[in-house]
Amino acid sequence: MKFSKMFIPTLKDAPKDALLPSHALLIRAGFISQLGTGLYDFLPLGLKMLEKISAVVREEMNKAGANEVRFSYMTPSEFWRESGRWNKFGKELLRLNDRKEGEFVLSPTNEESVVNMVRGRITSYKQLPLNLYQINLKFRDEARPRFGLMRGREFVMKDAYSFHSSEDDLRREFENMHATYERIFTRLGLDFRAVSADSGAIGGSGSKEFMVLAANGEDDILLSSSYAANVEAAIRKPRTSSSERPEANATSKFHTPNITSIEQLAKFFHVDPFYLVKAVIKKGLFDDGKGGVSEKIVVFFVRGDDEIQEAKAQNASKALELMDASEAEIAAAGLVAGFCGPKGLPEKVEFYIDNELRDEEQMIIGANEKDYHIIGFKMTGFNDSRWADLVAVKEGDLDLNGEPLVMKKGIEVGHIFMLGTRYSEAMNATYLDENGKAQPFIMGCYGIGISRLIAVMVEASNDERGIIWDKKCAPFSVHIIVPDVKNCAALEFALNLESELETQGIEVLLDDRAGARYGEKIADFELIGVPFGVVIGKDYANSGEVELITRKGLIKEKISAELVKNKLLELLKDER
Amino acid sequence: MKFSKMFIPTLKDAPKDALLPSHALLIRAGFISQLGTGLYDFLPLGLKMLEKISAVVREEMNKAGANEVRFSYMTPSEFWRESGRWNKFGKELLRLNDRKEGEFVLSPTNEESVVNMVRGRITSYKQLPLNLYQINLKFRDEARPRFGLMRGREFVMKDAYSFHSSEDDLRREFENMHATYERIFTRLGLDFRAVSADSGAIGGSGSKEFMVLAANGEDDILLSSSYAANVEAAIRKPRTSSSERPEANATSKFHTPNITSIEQLAKFFHVDPFYLVKAVIKKGLFDDGKGGVSEKIVVFFVRGDDEIQEAKAQNASKALELMDASEAEIAAAGLVAGFCGPKGLPEKVEFYIDNELRDEEQMIIGANEKDYHIIGFKMTGFNDSRWADLVAVKEGDLDLNGEPLVMKKGIEVGHIFMLGTRYSEAMNATYLDENGKAQPFIMGCYGIGISRLIAVMVEASNDERGIIWDKKCAPFSVHIIVPDVKNCAALEFALNLESELETQGIEVLLDDRAGARYGEKIADFELIGVPFGVVIGKDYANSGEVELITRKGLIKEKISAELVKNKLLELLKDER
Repeated sequence: MKFSKMFIPTLKDAPKDALLPSHALLIRAGFISQLGTGLYDFLPLGLKMLEKISAVVREEMNKAGANEVRFSYMTPSEFWRESGRWNKFGKELLRLNDRKEGEFVLSPTNEESVVNMVRGRITSYKQLPLNLYQINLKFRDEARPRFGLMRGREFVMKDAYSFHSSEDDLRREFENMHATYERIFTRLGLDFRAVSADSGAIGGSGSKEFMVLAANGEDDILLSSSYAANVEAAIRKPRTSSSERPEANATSKFHTPNITSIEQLAKFFHVDPFYLVKAVIKKGLFDDGKGGVSEKIVVFFVRGDDEIQEAKAQNASKALELMDASEAEIAAAGLVAGFCGPKGLPEKVEFYIDNELRDEEQMIIGANEKDYHIIGFKMTGFNDSRWADLVAVKEGDLDLNGEPLVMKKGIEVGHIFMLGTRYSEAMNATYLDENGKAQPFIMGCYGIGISRLIAVMVEASNDERGIIWDKKCAPFSVHIIVPDVKNCAALEFALNLESELETQGIEVLLDDRAGARYGEKIADFELIGVPFGVVIGKDYANSGEVELITRKGLIKEKISAELVKNKLLELLKDER
Repeated sequence: MKFSKMFIPTLKDAPKDALLPSHALLIRAGFISQLGTGLYDFLPLGLKMLEKISAVVREEMNKAGANEVRFSYMTPSEFWRESGRWNKFGKELLRLNDRKEGEFVLSPTNEESVVNMVRGRITSYKQLPLNLYQINLKFRDEARPRFGLMRGREFVMKDAYSFHSSEDDLRREFENMHATYERIFTRLGLDFRAVSADSGAIGGSGSKEFMVLAANGEDDILLSSSYAANVEAAIRKPRTSSSERPEANATSKFHTPNITSIEQLAKFFHVDPFYLVKAVIKKGLFDDGKGGVSEKIVVFFVRGDDEIQEAKAQNASKALELMDASEAEIAAAGLVAGFCGPKGLPEKVEFYIDNELRDEEQMIIGANEKDYHIIGFKMTGFNDSRWADLVAVKEGDLDLNGEPLVMKKGIEVGHIFMLGTRYSEAMNATYLDENGKAQPFIMGCYGIGISRLIAVMVEASNDERGIIWDKKCAPFSVHIIVPDVKNCAALEFALNLESELETQGIEVLLDDRAGARYGEKIADFELIGVPFGVVIGKDYANSGEVELITRKGLIKEKISAELVKNKLLELLKDER
């Protein structure tokens, strides 16, 4: 491909709102262009990456036995009402009306569509299992779209949905997809980890996320040699403390004037905050069961030196969303901020206690009365439904085998779920089992962020000059530069090299621009980030040599022009 | 590909609202599934056709020098305001709000997007010409979505936009695209004609439509050996009449009580309606120049035996939309229905007269007074801007060479436009010419309805049993049927034949279903419409013969199993 024939509008400056290297570099190198908040156009280079990634995903999904389909991007609200998500899904679900005031959704995910596609068409257990996937546009109306393709509003995703007649078969397919995802991300040249994950709004009985490790990742993941989890789902060995437990031979209310923080309280009683109970008061939005949403104050209790993990708190309380409660809202619920404890709460206030506090003795808790705490309290007598895993696991906490956990930043690129029957039951999608009895489909779902992967690849590999594509998945494999296209011998050699490499299945970008200076051409090579560059300059005529540049590290090497083709073929032997 | 591994849910019955064979058959044969009004999911077979058509279009567009991009499907309203289409585009433009009440559009076409992409990035005449295209979703909120993929609301289109520094270069690219479209539609096996077309809402100086001839076409096209045009744009040799012209030696108002129709008037005066002037009164919606829309009554005059062509009338009057005027609206405008004529109209009423009436003498026209007409009127003295081409050319009218025109039904599958500077001027998109002066880009645009083409192919070729795909573009080339998969020898032969043909680049569907009877398998073959079928039945063991079926005409032929592979390779030699 000739540079002069391809629309590659590189820019000197990054847009001001570009906080991440991937955002700045993809725009500067002419891969994407911003059209609106969270809306991007793909320029030829960007589209090429989108297609390359899609091709790998498609090939591996087909090999794994999945069938490709394409769902309508716009879906009628009736399906979302059937599944119950019309009300539960927050503002990220873009709702719109057509000219006849019909209600529709721009699909952020397609469980409803696929259940509608399958029900009535798959009627017998003999037709199962089935795995349907698509690669298509998605929309999520993010509150703060940012970071370019990393968190856009319109994006391209691969979403797959499987249907089964048994939990065992779902687990088999879950493992099949797990292995397929490993093959996909390996082929794309990524350093990734599969981690235990929260199932979130999609629901279901188990899920794993595929994370690419990157300094600018949005997710916190905890790793040990045998364990990997998103902080939203991470579990740990229950903590212990070697410091002295407070002692009071009776439960007693104690005057603690103006002592409202855990720090003050620990100092006041001269104890480790491990023995204190911290209250975190939130306002939650809940499905009111009548198609609407209601608000409620919820209190979460953890150890004084723990923090709540919000996704866990949300799952425990079944809240659609949790937010900070104002002082007025706290007071209105009958709570005393700074002195809130699990005993003696107003009857209507909902509360949850972290599992690690179960049966703990000699704890100090708020008395639900201004300027008073209770000492010598035993964490017992609470209803079973009050206990839940609420704590945010921290770096240094131990995994279940006792190995310390390390915290890393990760970017989610894939997510696989065991969904179960949540959607098939809600939408009455059944098949007849071996006994002729109608059963709801048991489902799994499996996503990969295709457009996001472009940004992830750049985030994982770049330097101050530009992008450094991995040779396994790059827009081109070789970038030939002819500094002066009036140098006929050099140009002719370049054209021959291009066509010989292309014949061998290697994609080449040949910078044949007459109007660009050498400096511009080299800057564009460094910015665009093709793995290997070949400069055919004055030395070609003088000594028969060309310069081979490895983009990673910008390693330059003089090499005889006669040898450069075979050298490149050798370097790219696995990529042809 | 094994039938048992592919999701092909065929149906016995067509949906009740399916009026066209293509709509009914694509649903029955398991290519598409309806999700909502004008919204379709693509099942694996349908997606396969979509991808095959896209691949041909992509290959030819790339060969023609165009660059593929992908525009954001959702576009901010600001660009549509810049171009002036936010108000001009009717309800087919789906406007929506995001969570922050920002206004957006689901793209029905992308002139605004591409101008935004190019401005600031292409700055010099040296960077021109440029042709950018995409294959992507589009949305048109049709008033009456119907006919399946033929007129859906969400659909897939190829849209291309070219940029030039001269009209000559635009014309060159227009011809380049014309030739490219001919190659594309030929490769897709379609019987098509390029016809002169109305440029409609897109605007511009010239356009051609590519029409596939089909009985159920939505468009009327007029053809002669040297001329082809959409009725919306068709011109003719001015008509003459051999019947006697009325004669009155003075212009005179004449009492014509209750004579309100052309038929009555012709009878009353004993003249050919050719000599009468017919008034067609419409209510038009107009851009009020302030970002809004205004309503106005407009009158169009044509000969008594002609009809107005609505697209022409709309272009002449620059109306955004024309609709029937009510009796009350006609009276309110000061018009007398049944007696309306071009002379003596209320001053505020806008009117247009067909070119063929220019300078005609002895015409009979309405007197704009109840029960009166004017006789002996000469069609002269009107402002030049009143004259326009308004007539609907009919079958039997003559082309400019005097050859009678034939009317055929066609389905539009492509449209190419010379746009000019309409969008670049409105959106202030310029480049510097050779003299360093800023000039607006001269543009062309070029569309192909990708998803519609699937329906068009079926509409052009089907029978009462199902679809008949052309071998040039079919989901599979060969459909192998093993009536009884327990017949091991037959199944083994089938599997070998499948793999040998696939090795030769021929796509094969092998019906290996254990649960389906022979009758079902044959019915599915006929319904799905793969060009060639091979039945490997009992005869294979008995006499070493198989049955080769040509789907078109359902021609069946016994053939030695040994020969069938080479026979198929021969039949498909151009399709590998």
